[in-house]
This record gives sequence, structure tokens and C-alpha cells, in this order.
Amino acid sequence: MNKEILDQWIARLYDQDRRATAKLISWVEDDIERAYIMRSIFKQTGQQMVVGITGPPGAGKSSLVEALTKLYRAKDERVGIVAVDPSSPYSGGAILGDRIRMQAHGTDRDVFIRSMGTRGHLGGVTRSTSDILRILEGGGYGRLVLETVGVGQSELEIMQMADTVVVVLNPGTGDGIQAIKAGIMEVADVFVINKADLAGAERMKGDIEMMLNLSCDGSAWRAPVVLTSVINETGLETLFEKIEAHRSYLLESGQRNEHCKQRLRQEVWRQWEDKLQTIFEDVWEAAQGKWVALENNDPYEIAEMLWEERFKEEKWDE
Amino acid sequence: MNKEILDQWIARLYDQDRRATAKLISWVEDDIERAYIMRSIFKQTGQQMVVGITGPPGAGKSSLVEALTKLYRAKDERVGIVAVDPSSPYSGGAILGDRIRMQAHGTDRDVFIRSMGTRGHLGGVTRSTSDILRILEGGGYGRLVLETVGVGQSELEIMQMADTVVVVLNPGTGDGIQAIKAGIMEVADVFVINKADLAGAERMKGDIEMMLNLSCDGSAWRAPVVLTSVINETGLETLFEKIEAHRSYLLESGQRNEHCKQRLRQEVWRQWEDKLQTIFEDVWEAAQGKWVALENNDPYEIAEMLWEERFKEEKWDE
Repeated sequence: MNKEILDQWIARLYDQDRRATAKLISWVEDDIERAYIMRSIFKQTGQQMVVGITGPPGAGKSSLVEALTKLYRAKDERVGIVAVDPSSPYSGGAILGDRIRMQAHGTDRDVFIRSMGTRGHLGGVTRSTSDILRILEGGGYGRLVLETVGVGQSELEIMQMADTVVVVLNPGTGDGIQAIKAGIMEVADVFVINKADLAGAERMKGDIEMMLNLSCDGSAWRAPVVLTSVINETGLETLFEKIEAHRSYLLESGQRNEHCKQRLRQEVWRQWEDKLQTIFEDVWEAAQGKWVALENNDPYEIAEMLWEERFKEEKWDE
Repeated sequence: MNKEILDQWIARLYDQDRRATAKLISWVEDDIERAYIMRSIFKQTGQQMVVGITGPPGAGKSSLVEALTKLYRAKDERVGIVAVDPSSPYSGGAILGDRIRMQAHGTDRDVFIRSMGTRGHLGGVTRSTSDILRILEGGGYGRLVLETVGVGQSELEIMQMADTVVVVLNPGTGDGIQAIKAGIMEVADVFVINKADLAGAERMKGDIEMMLNLSCDGSAWRAPVVLTSVINETGLETLFEKIEAHRSYLLESGQRNEHCKQRLRQEVWRQWEDKLQTIFEDVWEAAQGKWVALENNDPYEIAEMLWEERFKEEKWDE
């Protein structure tokens, strides 16, 4: 693509042009001029913090995101939302349904929602998500929310992109046990027991607090447990305040700097990994015709041979 | 470690020494002489196929694995089992519980069970699992079973290591929908509706078959749907036969060769990735003191600078 035209679209992004935001996100997702676009945007962004919201399907994450969005909008803040959903060619219905619930903000030009599937390699989704959050920041969305469905390892990896992780659970569902099994307790900065109108909410709160007492991670932040009910509109202001409190904690404790450093390292590593993958694909393709057919099935030997052939100055065993 | 001693342990592995099998697995998991051990074992293995069993927690995977193991043992085949469980420092109980259920084979020296957590980076687990399956093959376990809990993206990635993927679901639980959302329908070679004594089993079978009709992946294999009940001991022989039928299909259709090629490529790429990661860690460490502090937060620029500094012959933009 013509770089001048691309630059114009990027300039329009910074002018908070909604169409430019959507276009750039699509291009980056489709790997069209991704490096060029992201290089430009990275220089201008990285200040905003990301609130991550995760929990099992049906816990009410989308409703909570909608409620939070309402609170942000009341303070005249623009909100960018990325929702990562597991998906399949057969599905679509349920995910669309989630999005439809956000229709209260569907016509609000200061709210931008992007849904993503997790089909294909997870690493790809993680990277796209991180890029999309940057683009949204570039487009002037000052509040960034990242929502993922599920309580597994994949969701944990996605949540590494969030500065504040909110884990949403429901009383009486065994959610707590699932969350513990998935190792999600350790990454939570704020717990929400949503649908707190249901029986068992207070008991679940007690259980979680007890488990938090058992862990000793040495952090000065202790994850609060907030009871919410979207239907009765209770606890939502408290949730908002706890998220803000965590944000202040990150800034004051220097943790925020630590997050930024970690993410820079990860971004640089991803560039290297991408670069090597491109090289590897060429090398592997070229090797097919040559000697991979020679019944050699030792990946260690092949790796070393291909490496030394490609990187002439680099000995494998150094 | 002394290579002579290592070679002795590897020789004992090939003699089907159980202690050597356990020791080598532990070393590889702990990254002690991993490359040396695996290089040696790769040359001797890669013939056996892996049966993967996945499904949501509580679907009865472990009971099915136990039942399958019994059938293999009746035919005097040795069985190696790797169970990948999500875990957390708080848990342990449930996982241990699963293992205890396998106690029928706990004293059988021809059954080897290894449980693994998925804490830490998923990529690490995937690699360890693949190595452990190779070690078990080297130790003379002719039947390899890989069990994972859950129906998410992580489990899909782990299932790429299996030649035959068995997806276990339960009637009346919404499992089907979850499986569809997670994209697991497409990877299933055999469906099991376990606890088929519960209501809704036949209907679920119909639903799955209908969805299989909707998909058109062009494969000559059509995933059968098997109803099983471990309690009533029904359907287990049928499951066994379907797995064997898929195995024959893979061999006769040439799909097995395709699997092997794909895995070789992946193994070689992993070696390259490992190699680059080691280099990156050194480079990043060294860069800290130099100029990362210079308020440069553009990962693209940093990646390029570090790359060209390290790989003097390699231009980033080539």
C-alpha cells in the first residue's frame, strides 16, 4: 500500500476518526502493513492502562463491561473495548448475542467495541489484541477494557496484557474451584461476585478471602472482593472505585513501570520471533527439495544443519 | 552431568527399565541435559501413534482412559499415559483424586502414568508433553494416551500432538455448545458421549451428527459418535474399535505421514525458537545497561537495532 495514504489514515486515527480506527484495526488483523502501522502508533501510545475482565461463560462479564462503560461515559471518558471470544465456524450466534447486549452504546461514537475469535494460534490473537489496544489508544479511547471468556491458560495469557485484572465469578456454580484450578486466583487484582442476588454470594466471598489469606505473594495490593448485581444495579460504583484504586496503586508503587518494561521486552521478543519465523519458513521450504527426504527424522540434527547453513557466522553450539 | 552415565540411563530406558523412564522424564521436565537426552531418543522413536482424550472437567475422561488401558492390557500391550491438568498452588486435591482413580493399574509395571500441570507458559508444557511421549515410547510403551482437561484453545494446542483425538462430552450439560465454541468439533476424530445412561444422550448424538453433516472438510474420515457408560461398562469395546479404525485410516490414507512431517517441522522450529530465545535473553540483558534506559519505547526500533547488532550479517529488512 502507498505509504502516503497509510500515513493519512494514521493521522486521521489521531484525530479520533472512527472509520480510520476500524480500518487500521482490520489491516493489522489481516497483517496488511502491520509493522509500518504499529511502528508509527507505538511511538504515540502506551500511556493508557488496560482493565481486563475475565471469568467463565455466562458469569455476566459483558453486562459488567456495559455497566462500567456507562460509568466511564458519565465522566465523559471515551471507552475502547476488545472482547476475545473462543469461536468456531459453527458458532457466531452466542458471540453476536453478547455484542448485541452492548447495544446501549452501539450508537455512541465515543465507545468502540471490537470482538475477536481465538481460532488459529493463540500467540497470534495475543499479538493482535495488544496491537488493537494500542490502535484504540491512538484513536483517543482513554479507557481500555479487555474482556475474555473462560478461565483457562489461554485467558491467563491474554490477561497479561491488562494492568488491572478483574475476575468475575457467580455464586453457587463451582466457579471458584474452577478459577483456582486454572490458576486464575493469582492474577486477579479485583474479584467480582456477580449475580450477588443469588444464594451463596456472601459465603463465596468468605471462601475467596480465606484463600487470599493463604497466599503470600508479598504484594502490597490485596485483591478486594466486590459483590455486584447488574439487574439490581448494586455494587457497580464500588467495582469502579476498586479498579481506580488499583490504578492508583500501580502508579504510586512503581508497578506500572515494571509492567511497561515487561511488555516492551515481550514486544521486542515478538519482533525477533516473527523475523525468525519468516526466515524459517523460507529455509524449510527450500530444504524440502534437498535433503529432508533423506529419511532423516532427527529434528535436533536438522535444526542445527539448517541454522548453520542459514546463519553462516552463527555456530549452533556457541 | 557425565555423558557416560546419561548414556547408561538411556540404554536402561530402551531395556524398559521403569526407573530410567521416570528419571529421564524428570530430567527433561527440569531441563537437565534435555537436548542431549532427546537427541538420542528421537533417533529411536516416532513410530507409535498417540491417542488424545479431551473434554470438559468431570466428563469422565480418566475413567475412560482407565477402561481403555484395561482393554490394551488384556491384549498384553504396554500403556504410557500423560495427563495434562490445569493446576495452581492452591489445588492438587482434585488432580490427585483423578490419579487415584487409576489405581487399578497403579501396581501394573506395564502402565506408566505421568501427570503434568499447565502452569507457566503453555508452550513449555506442549514441548515437555511431546518429549515425554517420546521417552515413554523409548521405554517400550507401545500405546500412548494423552489426556487433557478442558475444552479451550490450550487443549486444542496440546491435542495437535495426538494422531487420534477423542472428545468426551456428557449429555444434558451444554458440553456440546462449549465444545463448538472452543472449536473442538473440527479436531475430533471420535466423539464419545459418556455417562450415556443419563437422559439426552441420543439427542446429543443426533445434534453432533447434524453438525458434522454441516461441516465439509473434505476428509475421507467421518468422526463416529460413540455412546459409553463406564459404570454400566457399555460402549467401551466400540470406542476401542473406532480408535483402531482411525489408526488404520491414518496409515492407509497417508495421513500418518502428513502428521509426521508436520511434527518434524514443528520440532525443528522449536529448536530454532529455543536457540533464538537464548540469544535474545543474553542480548536483552546486555542492552539494559546500555541504552534501553534512553526513553526509547519503540519495540520495532529496538528489535531492529538489537538484531542487526547481534547478527552482523543479517539486515532486518531483507
